[in-house]
Parts: sequence; C-alpha cells; structure tokens
Amino acid sequence: MSALRFVDLPSPFPFRRGGALHGARIAYETWGTLDAARANAVLIVTGLSPGAHAASSREDPSLGWWEEMIGPGKPIDSNRWFVVCVNSLGSCKGSTGPASIDPASGRPYGPDFPDLTIEDIAAAAWEVLAALGIERLAAVVGPSMGGMTAQALALQKPEACPNLLLISSAPHAEAFALAVRSLQREAIRLDPDWNGGRYAPDRLPIHGMRLARKLGVMTYRSPEEWKQRFGRARIEYRGCAPFDREFQVESYLESHAQRFIGSFDPNSYLWLSRAMDWFDLAEHGGTVEAAYQRMAVRRALVIGVETDILFPLEQQEEMAEGLRLAGAAVDFVALPSLQGHDAFLVDFRRFGPPIARFFRILG
Amino acid sequence: MSALRFVDLPSPFPFRRGGALHGARIAYETWGTLDAARANAVLIVTGLSPGAHAASSREDPSLGWWEEMIGPGKPIDSNRWFVVCVNSLGSCKGSTGPASIDPASGRPYGPDFPDLTIEDIAAAAWEVLAALGIERLAAVVGPSMGGMTAQALALQKPEACPNLLLISSAPHAEAFALAVRSLQREAIRLDPDWNGGRYAPDRLPIHGMRLARKLGVMTYRSPEEWKQRFGRARIEYRGCAPFDREFQVESYLESHAQRFIGSFDPNSYLWLSRAMDWFDLAEHGGTVEAAYQRMAVRRALVIGVETDILFPLEQQEEMAEGLRLAGAAVDFVALPSLQGHDAFLVDFRRFGPPIARFFRILG
Repeated sequence: MSALRFVDLPSPFPFRRGGALHGARIAYETWGTLDAARANAVLIVTGLSPGAHAASSREDPSLGWWEEMIGPGKPIDSNRWFVVCVNSLGSCKGSTGPASIDPASGRPYGPDFPDLTIEDIAAAAWEVLAALGIERLAAVVGPSMGGMTAQALALQKPEACPNLLLISSAPHAEAFALAVRSLQREAIRLDPDWNGGRYAPDRLPIHGMRLARKLGVMTYRSPEEWKQRFGRARIEYRGCAPFDREFQVESYLESHAQRFIGSFDPNSYLWLSRAMDWFDLAEHGGTVEAAYQRMAVRRALVIGVETDILFPLEQQEEMAEGLRLAGAAVDFVALPSLQGHDAFLVDFRRFGPPIARFFRILG
Repeated sequence: MSALRFVDLPSPFPFRRGGALHGARIAYETWGTLDAARANAVLIVTGLSPGAHAASSREDPSLGWWEEMIGPGKPIDSNRWFVVCVNSLGSCKGSTGPASIDPASGRPYGPDFPDLTIEDIAAAAWEVLAALGIERLAAVVGPSMGGMTAQALALQKPEACPNLLLISSAPHAEAFALAVRSLQREAIRLDPDWNGGRYAPDRLPIHGMRLARKLGVMTYRSPEEWKQRFGRARIEYRGCAPFDREFQVESYLESHAQRFIGSFDPNSYLWLSRAMDWFDLAEHGGTVEAAYQRMAVRRALVIGVETDILFPLEQQEEMAEGLRLAGAAVDFVALPSLQGHDAFLVDFRRFGPPIARFFRILG
C-alpha cells in the first residue's frame, strides 16, 4: 500500500538551463492535518536518494527513511504540523525523472532528460504546496541535498519560507565533494551497460552503480565510525576467487550497494548528482552572503556533524553566519556524531532534541 | 639511460602465503659510496607506485621521485651515505611482478602470480643488501607502504635495522583505508579488459585503472588543499558531451590518472594494494606492541601529517609509541602540511629539516 499522492506540474514545465517537461508530476506524502489558516505546513525536501515516504502512516505502515523524526509526539510532531515530504524532480520514486516515459517519444527520457538543477527541484516542489493551497510554510526542512533545495526555494519564494532547518548541507559543494561525485558518475558512465543513458530495464549498469554507491557510502560515514565498528575484522566465509571480499567493511559496502542498485535509476543518480555540483548560492546575487540577503528568513536552525567529510562542518558555519548576517535568528548546532554525513539518518539521540526545540519555538 | 641494477633472487624464492618464483630479480639504484666497513648504507623502500629511481645520478640524470631528499648535501646526503632504493617485488619497474614472464609458461604471470605480502617485499629487498655485502643498515627509510616494508624487514632482520625512519605509514590499515583500496581493486576488476588478469598488452583495463587512480589521488591529498587550490573553479574549455569534465578538480584528477595508466601494470596495482591490506604488525607476536618488542630498533623518527586521511596521524602516534615502549629513542613529528598523505613527495620545506636532523644524529 502506498501513501503517495501526485501533483501535475504546469505543462510545459521549463528548466532553468533550457528544455522543458510536458505532463510531468511530483510525488509526495503528508502526515497530520492542514489547519484552517493553512499555516501549519512543514515541507521536507530530501537528500539525493530518499523518496517521499519519510515516515509510516495509516495508508502505508512501512517504516519511512526518517521514521523517528516525524509522527505524533516526535520532533516534527504531526499532531501539530501538516508535514509534506516531496520526491525530488528528476528522482525515480514517483516524480518524473529520466526513467519516466517521454510523451514525445513513448520511451524513457534517458539522456534526453533536460539538464536538471537544484532550482528546478525547488520550483517543482513548490507546485505541490500551491496545489494544496499553501502560500506560506511554517518551516522548510532540508538535509543534505535537501538543504540546497530548501535554500533555492527560500530564494524563489522568500515570503513563503520564513523558517529554515538546514542539516548537513552547504551553500555549494567544495572541490572534494565535486571530486567524489565526479568519480561516482564516471563509474556509472564507464559501465558498458549504461550505453550513453539508453539502457534496457533488464540490463542496468549495475556494476557501475555498485561502485558509485560504495564510493558514496564511504563518504557518507566516517573513518572513526568504521574503525570502531569494523576495525580489521574479517568475514567468516570467504570465497575462493582472488580478491573476493575478506574484511567486514567490504561486506558492509557490498550490502549497502546491493540494496541500492535494484531500487534507484542510474540516470536519476547522474542527473541529481550533477545538480548538486552545479548548485551555487553565490549565483544568486554575486556572493553567498548576498544570496542570504535575498531570502527573508526570520529563524533558522543549522545542524552539522564534526565527522562529516562530504558537507564539512565549516560549510554549516558558513550557512549559519550568512543567515545571521541577513538578520535571521540562527541556532547553530555542531554534533559530535560518529556517523559522518549520514548521522541525521541514524543518530536520533543527538538530532532529535535540537529539532524538537526548533519546532517548539515555532509553535 | 637507466641507472637500474638488478639482483637475482634465490630460485625458488618462496612466498609467505605459498607459491614461489623462479628466476626472479629485484631492481635497485644507488647513490653515494659504500664505505670500507659497509656501515653507511641507507635503504629506501617505497610506496605503492614509485620505482627505484628516487633521484637523479650521473648514469640517469632524469629527476627522481624524491629528488629533493637524496643527493650531495641533501637531507639524505649521498656524500655521507650509500643510499639504496629498491623497487618492490611485485611491482613493474624492473623487479619481477605479475607482468613479468613466467618461465614455466612463457607468458606473463598475470593471475598466476603468487599471493604477495609486505613480508615478501621486505625479504626480497634484503637480497639486494646481501648481494652488496651489507649486513647492517645505517637506516631504513619507508614512506607510506614503504613504512610497512621497513617494519617487516626490522622484524625479519632485527640486528640489521637499528634505525628506522617511518613516514606517513601504519602498523596496519584501518577500515577506511581497506575500503578505499577495495574499491580501487573493484574498479580495475570490473573493467572487462581486465579479463581476470589476462589482458593483452595493447588492451589494458585503462578505464578501471583511471578510476582506481583517481580514487587514490582523492585520498592521497586533502580536502583542505583542494579547497584552496581549486575551490569551484571551472576549466576554460568544456566539451559538449553530457557529464564532461567541468571543474578544475576533475581535470586535475584526469591528468594524474592519465600519467599513471600508461606506466603501471594493473595486476601489479592489485597485488601490491592487497598486500597493504593484509599487512598487520600484530600478526608478529600477537599485538602491535609485541611486534615492536621483536625488533631491535634503537632510534626512530616517525613523521605524520595532520591532513592525511589514508594513514591518519593517530597511526603515526601508534608506531611512535610502540617503538618507544620497545626501548627506542623516538622522535615523533606531526606536520601541518596541506597535501595529506602525499605531503612527503611535495612539502620538502617541512619534511627536509626533521629528516636531515635524523641523519645528522646517526652520522
């Protein structure tokens, strides 16, 4: 059972770098009830891979990717807030993306999908809110890539986004993150089965995807965590083929990759990954600081993790400082979680309290 | 013109994990003059990729990989020391490795090359010294993987290795380094041209090698260095193909990889990479501390770099502490170089003085 709902995008829906989609749609889920003033809506925009199923509900009791964070009495309390989580434009979890059928050709867009930017993802997310009759959000919540989307939306609709919760995100990627994502895309593109983006559904570039995902997971966690969790521990059964997996950390990467490659479209991965590289707040006003001046943020919570190597803590400080200079009341929280960039998905003991406090203040 | 010399290994030369080589040899170069007492020899064992040409000489005036460190008046002063640099067993720069011809079959060893360990590399390096009539080294110098080889040799020939210079190395790899190298090997093995290790000389698995090398370079430097060097700077000319290189950091990785893939045997890379993963000082005596007790080190200099993510500083501290507990006089130097693991190859301003001081004390 799915709790996914859909909103049709205006057709054509133009993209920032050119091109447009016809008949596109955005998938979303909601929790809680929109109040009569339509003033209690909280938008969640996601990282690269999750879909809109952030938490369980009556319609879909399966666990969501942020189950501990959203629900009655939870830090984002669905008794109080009307929570909307949107699957990003370009993804493959219900929203239109490269794997969707191009009405012009009758086959998947594949390489014909327009160049996607974070700004397009934000504009498409807004269409969901517009369809729900929401003109102003109580808060926008963006972890990782979602933090970029949240900032893009706060630029496009300043008056609709007075309150921001940015988690392990950045105003733009720095060189190390650019390099990591460039290698991930190279791994997918080098797989002969990628075939320039025109792969058959039964012949996906799974080897490239496996490698790309492992490289991702390497940068989503932290060396410290792995040292404690795995050290040099071996797996019990080791195959006989040369270079077979031998250490537990290799099995961990493999199992993460296996779960992913069957459930995510390789082209979606490429398009979203590049969108993150392209995003640069400084394009909106000349500098990062000027971009924050163009928003109308009144209150913000910025959370970062000391062990994050992909969106390092200094980038969280940069966002907090930029928002503060633009006049927002900003709480900046640096967490010592061991799990690096992914800590917001697992370290609820540390992330829960500051997020709960943020929403209590808003309420 | 080459200054390479060769020493034949005993035939058969047995490997620690089984198997043996017949008619194998080790390539090496020397600088300076062995004194009458044969007491001034300094052995340099290398990281994964360099050959024995560490510095220029009359016979080979081309620049070596440690040119600024070795020579008359330099930190490792060839006016005083007889410096020997050995190409690792299993490499492809003159020493026998998987690309060498297997006398049993008349074709390259390829996948038939025996499982290689750091201990085998150390034992083979010793044969060069034995052939030169050297029974005791003034010092053993090991950067990166070479530091593992140096420690293995100090276990095999304790009395021959009273003085160690360990640079950006480790007593064993931790989980993050294991993961990085596992992915590098996976990239090579996934290239269809790898062909189980039986590739044609004109059809090397260059795509896999390119990706593996880029991933390596990512972990050899530091995010801080790249932020300062490249930031988000674009390259001037960008091709029209989707996902072409666009940022300078991508071009930097590409040029590093291009230089490498034409000059290093893919199987050598796999065998040496796995040897590093397998190496564990704790196998010699039960614990890392016990292994140092089995050496007979009197003086050691351990240098590490604060920004090294592959051989992190805490591992340098572990080596220094282990040697100290075993009774050696240890200098531990933590350098703030920006260039991460590779700093010893480029930051001579910081590395030169402590290394020069170490050799002055020995002399």
